[in-house]
Amino acid sequence: MKAPPGISEAMFSEALRRFAAVVGKQWVFTRAEDVATYRDAYSPLKNEPDEKVASAAVAPSSVEEVQQVVRIANHYSIPLYTISCGRNLAYGGSAPVYSGSVVLDLKRLNRIIEVSEENAYALVEPGVSYFDVYRFIREHGMKLWVDVPDPGWGSLIGNALDHGAGRTQLPYRDHFDAHCGMEVVLANGEIFRTGMGALPTAKTWQQFRYGAGPFIDGIFSQSNLGIVTKMGFWLMPEPEACLVGSIRCRRHDDVKPLVRILANLTYSGIVNCQIPILSPPFLSPLDDAKAALLDKPDGGSAEQWDSYAASRHMHFWQTELRFYGPVSVIEAQWNHVKGRLAEIRDVQLEDGDLMRFPLTDEQVDAVAEPVVLGIPSLAVFSSVRGNSGHLDASPIIPFSGEALLEAQKVFAQAFRRAGLPQKLGFAMSYHWRSFILFQGLWLTEDAQENALMRGMYRQLIKLAAERGWGIYRAHAAFMDDVMSTYSFNDNALLRVHEALKDALDPKGILSPGRYGIWPRKMRRAHS
Amino acid sequence: MKAPPGISEAMFSEALRRFAAVVGKQWVFTRAEDVATYRDAYSPLKNEPDEKVASAAVAPSSVEEVQQVVRIANHYSIPLYTISCGRNLAYGGSAPVYSGSVVLDLKRLNRIIEVSEENAYALVEPGVSYFDVYRFIREHGMKLWVDVPDPGWGSLIGNALDHGAGRTQLPYRDHFDAHCGMEVVLANGEIFRTGMGALPTAKTWQQFRYGAGPFIDGIFSQSNLGIVTKMGFWLMPEPEACLVGSIRCRRHDDVKPLVRILANLTYSGIVNCQIPILSPPFLSPLDDAKAALLDKPDGGSAEQWDSYAASRHMHFWQTELRFYGPVSVIEAQWNHVKGRLAEIRDVQLEDGDLMRFPLTDEQVDAVAEPVVLGIPSLAVFSSVRGNSGHLDASPIIPFSGEALLEAQKVFAQAFRRAGLPQKLGFAMSYHWRSFILFQGLWLTEDAQENALMRGMYRQLIKLAAERGWGIYRAHAAFMDDVMSTYSFNDNALLRVHEALKDALDPKGILSPGRYGIWPRKMRRAHS
Repeated sequence: MKAPPGISEAMFSEALRRFAAVVGKQWVFTRAEDVATYRDAYSPLKNEPDEKVASAAVAPSSVEEVQQVVRIANHYSIPLYTISCGRNLAYGGSAPVYSGSVVLDLKRLNRIIEVSEENAYALVEPGVSYFDVYRFIREHGMKLWVDVPDPGWGSLIGNALDHGAGRTQLPYRDHFDAHCGMEVVLANGEIFRTGMGALPTAKTWQQFRYGAGPFIDGIFSQSNLGIVTKMGFWLMPEPEACLVGSIRCRRHDDVKPLVRILANLTYSGIVNCQIPILSPPFLSPLDDAKAALLDKPDGGSAEQWDSYAASRHMHFWQTELRFYGPVSVIEAQWNHVKGRLAEIRDVQLEDGDLMRFPLTDEQVDAVAEPVVLGIPSLAVFSSVRGNSGHLDASPIIPFSGEALLEAQKVFAQAFRRAGLPQKLGFAMSYHWRSFILFQGLWLTEDAQENALMRGMYRQLIKLAAERGWGIYRAHAAFMDDVMSTYSFNDNALLRVHEALKDALDPKGILSPGRYGIWPRKMRRAHS
Repeated sequence: MKAPPGISEAMFSEALRRFAAVVGKQWVFTRAEDVATYRDAYSPLKNEPDEKVASAAVAPSSVEEVQQVVRIANHYSIPLYTISCGRNLAYGGSAPVYSGSVVLDLKRLNRIIEVSEENAYALVEPGVSYFDVYRFIREHGMKLWVDVPDPGWGSLIGNALDHGAGRTQLPYRDHFDAHCGMEVVLANGEIFRTGMGALPTAKTWQQFRYGAGPFIDGIFSQSNLGIVTKMGFWLMPEPEACLVGSIRCRRHDDVKPLVRILANLTYSGIVNCQIPILSPPFLSPLDDAKAALLDKPDGGSAEQWDSYAASRHMHFWQTELRFYGPVSVIEAQWNHVKGRLAEIRDVQLEDGDLMRFPLTDEQVDAVAEPVVLGIPSLAVFSSVRGNSGHLDASPIIPFSGEALLEAQKVFAQAFRRAGLPQKLGFAMSYHWRSFILFQGLWLTEDAQENALMRGMYRQLIKLAAERGWGIYRAHAAFMDDVMSTYSFNDNALLRVHEALKDALDPKGILSPGRYGIWPRKMRRAHS
């Protein structure tokens, strides 16, 4: 057992004894094999000297225990690293940003406090997973859906606080945006509730999020200013049906009207689903002809790409839309969309499945893409088979075909220059009005290969930032790199984050370094 | 000219001279008749010794001038009170919360920096009004709507920061929720941008609001932690058409299924408009029979109210829904709604107007209710004729018929007990998932009557808070009263607000007292 940096062994032992007195001895983990379970399964620093590892872990079972643990940590200046279910794979998992932190594991705070069918919300603790809420709803026969991310074993609170997203309707699939009300424990152990929850007899804690005065919930997302112990989420009423519409376009430049029209329909609320934009020519394995295109300064012209695609009998773009609601309404919506898209020459519009709800258990098991129907799944892990995990260096790009074309080429060229395969490279409109252009980097057990991937990750961040495309979510090992790109006025925003940190956690015990926010005493070493 | 409390005349004169050197002498207002233009037109303390008044005003014309003015104020510890267009009537208008503050009037920062038709957003400065954006859109022939509040002469930024709302679709009508990206000047004159705006070459500042790291925008709403100098807003694409559907229910208890069904349809996105719920029996003038009902402890049973309404040939509830979009879609939506509401016995469902867009100038002038079509108007002022203004003590209540019935009776009884006429008393679903139950208090030129209204305002706040219904927006004279009801864990939330205040504005120069947040040095006197 190694104490956190700057903490004496004796002090650390004393703090751990006091943690044990609060949570019970069996919920303080100090043996190497127990602490190792908190290692990042997808660490880009795996088995290297600077792999980020915990010194111990403590798992309270109630909010009161969280408050007591935090007070003890504050007294001894022990750095805590808070996790919910610890499933934030590709972003650091359950391992701390600051090596030597004690993991504050909230998995035992796993109560579903309330699910209201009539008002379509859930109030949960951090240890509640998407699977838990899904099962609860199904067991109680409630006509509700919970929007789930890929995969579904993570925490609703953890995912929302990391600005995660899912695949159904807005506002539900933007998980932080679909929250309503929080309970937070501060570094001094004080507890407070946001929004209407600050009224002792609140009746609309999960129905009106502002309360009165500043709306502060957001400062507890992607940060380390407090520990969220309860959070409300809006749920989606189970729709009558889901209709799928498939769209294919033939040419390189068709993506311009395609996205322009779909964006407009999204802003209007007529299209309300996540829009994935895939390009077979960009996604297909690199061959000599494609390499030659990417080696051109402009990454290849529209005509050159069109002839590349035509010679391989590829259409250029494809997407699938999903409409959730009454059959009459969603058919009218899809028909309207078809009419609008008809202006694109040779566009192929195909009516897909119409599925009616609720599904039987047998139907649920047979669903090809469960996540788009609010059914949690671990199927996404099949894509990482044969690797030791992956990193996600995905920038946010504008919701336009022009931006998508530019970004497709810039990133494909970057991978080509680095001699690395570009394994993802498709766009999804997870949040309200932008695309995430997925860029994955696969990790192995080989330290040299992982070093290459780390270099590539940093290059992708830089490349994106130069073009005004920000990374929205970072792996723990790269949070400082990502945040340093948000540098307007000499990183003024980071200084605001730091001022908030000093105000709410003056000793800097909560998750030091998360999203580039270091306590005052560690600031110089990390900037 | 009277200096702010605690500031010597000499120091104040020096500060004013330095303000003048920055903004020009003609934009520093110190003459009594000029400063008087900043008085609250709807003050509940009008002409009384403790009416909240400014000592002076300063009107910079650029962000750089704002920074310089703030630095000077910070140097001399001069309290500033920031206003955008100064039109926040019923909530304090352009008068400060802390008497003697210098009004920082941002009306000259009136640039519409960008309106993107393709991506449906606007980036504006604080002095830009809804009328300004509406005219800009119309003059440029853009197929966009801006959601407007009643009335439309206020600032987009000011309204959104006060959690104001309008009447069209979600998310647009929840003005703070429909913002994307801010630029803020801190008390020390530092400037920063939030979200993707922190990337120097940002391409999605108005398209993705989180950026990376904590999402801090909300702390600048209903508060005094910084000065917002730019803000982006999502606009709604001009719909093909708008269809009105009218609904009437006969009985007291019909509101339970009515709201249950409409709430469910709202959560599903099928109904996406603001839902006003009016009750002729509750809204009609008080007569002896109604007084007798309200004098009962339960405020009258369903049967008693039904016979009251029947004897007066009143239906009990009415609402109008608006559907915005392609004719085929909105007809399918309204038909679906009619099908769902058919379970309410004797419900009357009537197809209203179908209006197609764009409107000609003549059609615009003839529109009966412009605000529901995104047309700014001042028509709402006709309702306050014959008074010196009004106060709004409107609580947020749950989106349910049960809550609405309880609240209707509780507030009607309160007015009856006080011997005051209840002039409003209807519910509107301005924000996402709750009702505002409007409670207005009319002001006069008579100090004694106004004192009665102030007492009533405080009673309404208390009455609402006891039942778990929070006031969402407060007049400057009652901000401390309202915030004191948000008292969970001994007002822990207010202490968090104060910690943020001390961190970002240690000298407490920005809008002292706004939403109950006082600088450290004034805290004791006001709590």
